[in-house]
Amino acid sequence: MDGEKVSVEAGKPIVCKAAVAREPGEPLVIEEIMVAPPGHHEVRVRIICTTLCHSDVTFWKMKDYPAVFPRILGHEAIGVVESVGEDVDEVVEGDVVIPVFLPECGDCADCKSKKSNLCSKFPFEPTPWMPGDETSRFTDLKGEVLYHFLNVSSFSEYTVLNIANIVKIDPSIPPSRACLLSCGVSTGVGAAWKTANVEAGSTVAIFGLGSIGLAVAEGSRICGATKIIGVDVNQEKFELGKKFGITDFVNVGECGDKPVSQVINEMTGGGADFCFECVGLASLMEQAYASCRKGWGKTIILGVEKPGSQITFQCSDVILGGRTLTGSLFGGLKAKSDIPILLKRYMDKELELDKFVTHEVSFEDINKAFDLLLEGKSIRCVIWMDK
Amino acid sequence: MDGEKVSVEAGKPIVCKAAVAREPGEPLVIEEIMVAPPGHHEVRVRIICTTLCHSDVTFWKMKDYPAVFPRILGHEAIGVVESVGEDVDEVVEGDVVIPVFLPECGDCADCKSKKSNLCSKFPFEPTPWMPGDETSRFTDLKGEVLYHFLNVSSFSEYTVLNIANIVKIDPSIPPSRACLLSCGVSTGVGAAWKTANVEAGSTVAIFGLGSIGLAVAEGSRICGATKIIGVDVNQEKFELGKKFGITDFVNVGECGDKPVSQVINEMTGGGADFCFECVGLASLMEQAYASCRKGWGKTIILGVEKPGSQITFQCSDVILGGRTLTGSLFGGLKAKSDIPILLKRYMDKELELDKFVTHEVSFEDINKAFDLLLEGKSIRCVIWMDK
Ligand SMILES: [Zn+2]
Ligand SMILES: [Zn+2]
Ligand SMILES: [Zn+2]
Ligand SMILES: [Zn+2]
Repeated sequence: MDGEKVSVEAGKPIVCKAAVAREPGEPLVIEEIMVAPPGHHEVRVRIICTTLCHSDVTFWKMKDYPAVFPRILGHEAIGVVESVGEDVDEVVEGDVVIPVFLPECGDCADCKSKKSNLCSKFPFEPTPWMPGDETSRFTDLKGEVLYHFLNVSSFSEYTVLNIANIVKIDPSIPPSRACLLSCGVSTGVGAAWKTANVEAGSTVAIFGLGSIGLAVAEGSRICGATKIIGVDVNQEKFELGKKFGITDFVNVGECGDKPVSQVINEMTGGGADFCFECVGLASLMEQAYASCRKGWGKTIILGVEKPGSQITFQCSDVILGGRTLTGSLFGGLKAKSDIPILLKRYMDKELELDKFVTHEVSFEDINKAFDLLLEGKSIRCVIWMDK
Repeated sequence: MDGEKVSVEAGKPIVCKAAVAREPGEPLVIEEIMVAPPGHHEVRVRIICTTLCHSDVTFWKMKDYPAVFPRILGHEAIGVVESVGEDVDEVVEGDVVIPVFLPECGDCADCKSKKSNLCSKFPFEPTPWMPGDETSRFTDLKGEVLYHFLNVSSFSEYTVLNIANIVKIDPSIPPSRACLLSCGVSTGVGAAWKTANVEAGSTVAIFGLGSIGLAVAEGSRICGATKIIGVDVNQEKFELGKKFGITDFVNVGECGDKPVSQVINEMTGGGADFCFECVGLASLMEQAYASCRKGWGKTIILGVEKPGSQITFQCSDVILGGRTLTGSLFGGLKAKSDIPILLKRYMDKELELDKFVTHEVSFEDINKAFDLLLEGKSIRCVIWMDK
């Protein structure tokens, strides 16, 4: 596909359109930028479509470091390899790839272990640069550096990615579905499937029914959970959640004097087998831990709290409860091996991705995608580069 | 064995000797007491030998509730069933049993699940009564109630136990070795074997080289851990620890400005695979968590902190580290099925119990066992009832 487009510009900078975040909270500006050729172990990718994830919005609104401007946001996407840098064997021009913010070098102790997805060659940090580098591949037409975002920067017709941040996929998969596995849906589904290993017949409680929480529900449904409790402050999320497997709902605003954990303990006869915190609130993490079953309950923390926040437990609860607490980044997935498995499960009609896509817009309307997410109207809005 | 002793007094109170804790911190008083016949689902057991565990000392020194006086302490022991109460099928008179403080009713959701060892019919609490009851089976000869301790009260020639608190064992096993599995050794070995499931070739860090920490080392050694780091303030514990499989030592008092976790991270190239906190200090629990490997490290909390103590983590460390924190009571063991497995491993010369026994005294010298433990001289002191 698009065979005529690849490789023409290989080795040279490309001038293309990007949506640049120039000021915190201000609409992105679509302008022409310059994208350098890929360096060692890098590829330049033409983005087919991209979507908007909450982390984009968080860093777009944020005024201080680690937020930086001007920057090219975006990290959920799918694209075609336009050209490859030195020592790239994994893909060739024309391959379809998904970018992933969490690197997988394939060589370090973590990448070689089945137990970790936290590459130690490229430790994950929200730096404004290419991984393992302190440089950018983007400049505007005045020569000013444009910063990278989460190792991806997909709000551009072309971007440069380290090969640690790409997954080659079957090109026959619809791009507007495959791109969902780039971040949010993988994080939620992976947390249920890989980090928690939710068992058939078990009870799950999900704190926060945003897109990640809904993806946890979808993952739990696939794993065979029979009771999936959604916890949110917005009652409308219950109707929505039912499509994703949510069977019961707790409205935090209607618990009265009871802590949420007590409500869930009563609903489940002693606590949920698995609790997932998807908001990033320390107090909710503590409630999630208190909501999981003594003896075997597992609490998985997915939500990212602001720096410096602390979570506190009673020591006696920890030892006497026998519960487990685990942090999960990118759902515990090892991107290069696990995303193809999830895509196969989509093609086999087990993993339902269609229901995550609520809106589609053209690249020039990218700011509408921000409005829809901020208004709580969209789960995922696909942004098409070519339409 | 002792066939002539059993059953003579069945159904009637027995007058026998017990070591009674009458005042906090004061030497136990050996006196004659009255032991009631066993009730429904109870057995009366003649103690063969008992040992002293740190929890006995903790509750002996403690001045306020949950400490109560006068009380019969002791919870690590072995004995022979003297008589059985109503509806007892599991054992008959003459059976050799180990008492265990943590109940296992066999019927509740927890007891029926492979994943939990926290019986929900008899939730563990340090009450002064028989489990599921608010009465005592002990009185002194003036008729005053003597309180129970941890469902066992083994510092008496005879005691009454709920059948949820006994494990029938092979009578050919030497009693001074079998009794060690009643509490401390099982807790440590079980934490490595069952709760953590330590893998061959892995790296372990043990915080606190008391008897439970040494038992964790023994368990880790059996599981095939290749590096077992002992962490303590007492350098002498290193020589002792070597017998239990400790390969490396960190003296907390000699770390200078470095947190212990940094020292362990440096020693292990990024953190231990498994960390065990065996002291019961919140600050050490936090250090243990920070000492385990990002991506897959597991921290197991065994030490019991004082009520109200809290453990605090940075939210960002939890999610970005991918570590797991688990509380473990009685090493995650299900007493009735797991203790016989451990005893078989002792008879097969895999699990080494002999080295835990450093002293033996007669019952009349029970206060010497307290002195030896308080002076840090003993790991386990066997107290023989008949000698
Ligand atoms: Zn790596
Ligand atoms: Zn994202
Ligand atoms: Zn039970
Ligand atoms: Zn004990």
